[in-house]
Amino acid sequence: MPSPSFALALLSPRSIALVGVSGDASKNTARPLLFMRKHGFKGDVYPVNPARKEVLGEPAYPDLASLPAPVDHVFIMVPGQHVLGLLEPCAAAGAKVVTVYSDGFGESGDEGGRRQEQLVQRARELGLRILGPNSIGLADIPAGAIISVNAAFAADDLIAGDVSIVSQSGSMMGSLLSRAAARGFGFAKSVSVGNESDISVGEVVDALVDDAQTRVILLFLETIRESPVLAAALRRAHAAGKPVIAYKLGRSRQGGELSQSHTGAIAGNDAAVDAFFRAHGVIRVHMLETLFEIVPLVARYAQQTPFLNRSPRVAVITTTGGGAATVVDSLGMHGLQAVAPPMEFIDHMAGRGLALRQTPVIDLTLAATSAQYKDLLEQLLAAPWCDAVLSVVGSSAQFHPDLAVRPLIEADKPAGKPLAAFLAPHAPESLARLQENSIAAFRTPEACADALAAFLGRARPSPPPPRGGGAAFSWPAGMARSGLLTEYEAGQILGRLGLRVARTRMVAPGDLRHDIPYPVAVKVCSRDIAHKTDAGGVRVGVADDADLQRQVHAMLGEVGRRLPQARVEGILVQKMEDRLIELILGFRRDPLVGPIVVLGAGGIAAELSEDFSVRLAPVDLATAHEMIKEVRITQLVRGYRGLPEADCDALAADIAAFSRLASVSGASVAEAEINPLFVRRDGAIAVDALISLH
Amino acid sequence: MPSPSFALALLSPRSIALVGVSGDASKNTARPLLFMRKHGFKGDVYPVNPARKEVLGEPAYPDLASLPAPVDHVFIMVPGQHVLGLLEPCAAAGAKVVTVYSDGFGESGDEGGRRQEQLVQRARELGLRILGPNSIGLADIPAGAIISVNAAFAADDLIAGDVSIVSQSGSMMGSLLSRAAARGFGFAKSVSVGNESDISVGEVVDALVDDAQTRVILLFLETIRESPVLAAALRRAHAAGKPVIAYKLGRSRQGGELSQSHTGAIAGNDAAVDAFFRAHGVIRVHMLETLFEIVPLVARYAQQTPFLNRSPRVAVITTTGGGAATVVDSLGMHGLQAVAPPMEFIDHMAGRGLALRQTPVIDLTLAATSAQYKDLLEQLLAAPWCDAVLSVVGSSAQFHPDLAVRPLIEADKPAGKPLAAFLAPHAPESLARLQENSIAAFRTPEACADALAAFLGRARPSPPPPRGGGAAFSWPAGMARSGLLTEYEAGQILGRLGLRVARTRMVAPGDLRHDIPYPVAVKVCSRDIAHKTDAGGVRVGVADDADLQRQVHAMLGEVGRRLPQARVEGILVQKMEDRLIELILGFRRDPLVGPIVVLGAGGIAAELSEDFSVRLAPVDLATAHEMIKEVRITQLVRGYRGLPEADCDALAADIAAFSRLASVSGASVAEAEINPLFVRRDGAIAVDALISLH
Repeated sequence: MPSPSFALALLSPRSIALVGVSGDASKNTARPLLFMRKHGFKGDVYPVNPARKEVLGEPAYPDLASLPAPVDHVFIMVPGQHVLGLLEPCAAAGAKVVTVYSDGFGESGDEGGRRQEQLVQRARELGLRILGPNSIGLADIPAGAIISVNAAFAADDLIAGDVSIVSQSGSMMGSLLSRAAARGFGFAKSVSVGNESDISVGEVVDALVDDAQTRVILLFLETIRESPVLAAALRRAHAAGKPVIAYKLGRSRQGGELSQSHTGAIAGNDAAVDAFFRAHGVIRVHMLETLFEIVPLVARYAQQTPFLNRSPRVAVITTTGGGAATVVDSLGMHGLQAVAPPMEFIDHMAGRGLALRQTPVIDLTLAATSAQYKDLLEQLLAAPWCDAVLSVVGSSAQFHPDLAVRPLIEADKPAGKPLAAFLAPHAPESLARLQENSIAAFRTPEACADALAAFLGRARPSPPPPRGGGAAFSWPAGMARSGLLTEYEAGQILGRLGLRVARTRMVAPGDLRHDIPYPVAVKVCSRDIAHKTDAGGVRVGVADDADLQRQVHAMLGEVGRRLPQARVEGILVQKMEDRLIELILGFRRDPLVGPIVVLGAGGIAAELSEDFSVRLAPVDLATAHEMIKEVRITQLVRGYRGLPEADCDALAADIAAFSRLASVSGASVAEAEINPLFVRRDGAIAVDALISLH
Repeated sequence: MPSPSFALALLSPRSIALVGVSGDASKNTARPLLFMRKHGFKGDVYPVNPARKEVLGEPAYPDLASLPAPVDHVFIMVPGQHVLGLLEPCAAAGAKVVTVYSDGFGESGDEGGRRQEQLVQRARELGLRILGPNSIGLADIPAGAIISVNAAFAADDLIAGDVSIVSQSGSMMGSLLSRAAARGFGFAKSVSVGNESDISVGEVVDALVDDAQTRVILLFLETIRESPVLAAALRRAHAAGKPVIAYKLGRSRQGGELSQSHTGAIAGNDAAVDAFFRAHGVIRVHMLETLFEIVPLVARYAQQTPFLNRSPRVAVITTTGGGAATVVDSLGMHGLQAVAPPMEFIDHMAGRGLALRQTPVIDLTLAATSAQYKDLLEQLLAAPWCDAVLSVVGSSAQFHPDLAVRPLIEADKPAGKPLAAFLAPHAPESLARLQENSIAAFRTPEACADALAAFLGRARPSPPPPRGGGAAFSWPAGMARSGLLTEYEAGQILGRLGLRVARTRMVAPGDLRHDIPYPVAVKVCSRDIAHKTDAGGVRVGVADDADLQRQVHAMLGEVGRRLPQARVEGILVQKMEDRLIELILGFRRDPLVGPIVVLGAGGIAAELSEDFSVRLAPVDLATAHEMIKEVRITQLVRGYRGLPEADCDALAADIAAFSRLASVSGASVAEAEINPLFVRRDGAIAVDALISLH
């Protein structure tokens, strides 16, 4: 028998050793064996326990060396300090993957972190891969291979299906499975990644792309580790037509900090995480229940529903006006539009015997038969003026499912026009019928709106970044390659990238001659001063030569008092430019997802305005235009109340050019910021810039 | 037998006539009789049907005049055109309240609206009160008085309880009741108000205040009608210790417009509705499920939990770190803080045998016994450093409720410190146990956070507005009393209110002499021009007398070309003031809730910034300070990065003074706006003002 691939050994092992399995059926560590027997695993399972000849009625082996045949996968459930010594026997037993339930590693502090590093180091030497430690385990549900201590698998029936789930939280895995089971969801694989010391979420996703049973991949995430690995796996999943749906904690600052303290992870910026998901085609949901309720929508429609570059339009039909309003109100909060049928459609339906009114919700209360309901659904699903159809079913869902629930099942449903339902009453039987028929049916108006917004608002994945250094920006010879650049140097870099910089001359404090027309701004030039304004190192509106002398003298005095150690390299004399609005354009490396570019409202209140757009860097022109539209303040220069309009094409070109700081050859930019970037009729001008290098 | 009060005849009638009751048990109109017999109504029910001698096995009466005794309440279920003619017989039969199920009135367009007006007019003449028309009915559930066609009452068991619900949506009432029943909630009264032609939500709430069975009042609202009546009822409910919880549609613009088209209601501003609820102590929830799930929290704790004027601090204990993080993340989105225990508390618990870590979530996974869990709960509930305690229960809720669910029930729970639970897995039995014990237990992290934010963030109701004209602002003699005031006149009004206005002189176009120091701003003064800037009627930075001549000439030319009809009353010459930030201060009459005052970020981008605070007008100083804190941009002048600070006391005084425009004697202000209001170290200065009168 040939040795299985890594993906098969991880997700679909055929022979499994359980090290540390208990003979006491009430113990957690007895569960994997009990579960595999209960759910009929057909492969080989070898209990390993040196203290017993027999475990739960089966012969036990004293150690891995005693096994009668090689194994694919070992599950280790012994105290943490004994795990390291087991790796060599695991390798000798033929294992490719070792899943470690034991805790006391990275999650428990510095000493545990060192123990975890040793473990990974040893596994690398032995050619072993590790899932965990601190993993509650994984399961191949159709095969009954339950390599897990998760109590949720004690259920009498496990529903096998084509959805797989990966969770960074072990303690939530049982809750997720129980919620899914209560909704009639079947799973293919469930994987708790624990501390991700070796195998990270990205590698599991990659393996799931190759798993024939998996059609949809769900992620419960607290952080993002090894984002390049995850990014590559997400691109493969997209190419293979396997949608990925994520629920990620850390939307609030508090949630982010909690994930950090709870998992030992690094906290990133949630907007950067959003940009990462968007760039890689991940559908992100914001409510826990949506993670499951959205699945039929995504499974049925993700392949053929077009990506929209505008506010999605949803046709809403209902038998309860108030019930429909609960969803439509929530849709509005997500920027989705309930769209009234055009007159041609109303005429079309009148010709088919159904009178409609031109309202954003098509209310059929009391007026229509089941056949009319079905016909209307089919006509809407074929109509070009809406992007999706939502049926909000009233009390009939509870008492007369034939009226409005059966038509949803029986209607002819084309592949590219999503259909979803919200049932207003408590109607478990109708929900179950719809679930059995793979129709997305929501229990709450909020999850329904969350799902439609996430699905219809999903973006086409960005093309992968170019390989090699062809597109990289070459760092100029002679320019500093580490630390903070001076504003003058930063301006030169921006100029090389193709951005326009306010006309600036560097002069010596003792010789202030320059050729910039008055009035001018003057600034101190020093690589020791990141925040010139705070240091007293900026004066604006300097009127003439005499004023220049006075102001520079005063400025140098103030800077010298405040920052006596700062070396002043010169004085910058800058043309006073005018502008329509001020933006901020920033570049940084997010600790979770890597290089990002940020466009936002500029000036001193930038961080208070909550008005910004984030993308992974570098960006192309189309993405730069999306960013401009997402920043609210730019409305002022895009045809607002007759105000002058800016050159947004030039601005987009500047954003794209600036974002090339992500791929510099010859240096590595840690962070860069243009604040303010003056936006004008004739394009943008950088007025102040800061670049710091690794 | 004395005639019952209006409240009793409405909510607890003892004798009821059913006009238009059907003898066909499958018809909607047969339901009230079937329901009352099924649920054991002990009062008198009189079926009225001229076509039958017997209805559903009971003797029927041909008309109201034939009834053997007077009735309290008549339920009319005949086609709309016959309703008007029935009012006189209703009055003759002794009825105080007539509930009209029939449709074809205000909800159906102009003609229906006229029919509705006639109905109300006639009822007034006869001393009758009308619930509806287009009402699905109401129910006194403990008494079995089901005056309703709502199919939800077909349930075999109706759970009687102490919660009453009022809904503006008839078609949602059944869904609401079915969802509540599935959660084990019992109701006292349920009332569908239909078109509110006569009896509005406010009067129903008022009657519920007097209903001995009602302890908590739930509102499902699409709009607000007769806000003064509702406001008075809400104040009475608060004084009586009966909390009111509202779910209101119209948070999104789309939702607001839908309610308008769907119900014929007027759309107001959702922020104004929020201000109304806040002023009257209503707890507003934002998710449909929260309307029910919050009830035990509110019922048990509303009376003694203090009102907080700061971000609420929640102590979170859990057996699932990931599950707790789902709630904590959502709490953070609502501005609530998961608070780590202080060292003294950790020492205190160590002394009681439990080791805790100082983290924002107290994680007891695997480490604690049920007794320790209960002890920790009790110590937290007694601790002064948290405002509420949240227990997030993991898989044990599903498999071992004794571990973490029973302690919630058994712990000693003081009245002023709310306790709530979120159960991470699907755990219906544990939810039911907690519900039976009146402990708020949530099914989703989002509803849990919504409820805690709504409850802990609830405000002490504002004092009722002063009676009589004592505090009213007297309109100056000689000032225009209708239409648009000129900027100069508006400035005089602001001055009378006690606000500082930028020094301004009105001069004639032919004689521009003035005593304002240069540079100055000049503006055209005309009551025909509301938007001077758009008309070319503003010039700033005028340098000297010659410049003034030139600029005024050019300005008058431009205004004359753009608005040739506008009468120019003079030229305003205004001192150019400096400022730290610009705000907008507005007053208007919201169509739903009446006078409101708005403070927001000012300038041309005001409406793009989404940075504002709204309250019912007038406001006191404390409320004005709250508003200042809610506007993000004011952080710039409240101790931000060493920037100069503004005089916020003076600003608050200006807001309170300006809000007196709500109570003017001698005129009625429709709308007023100061934009910009310059905020400075030495207080605020109004630079431009607009006042329009009814």
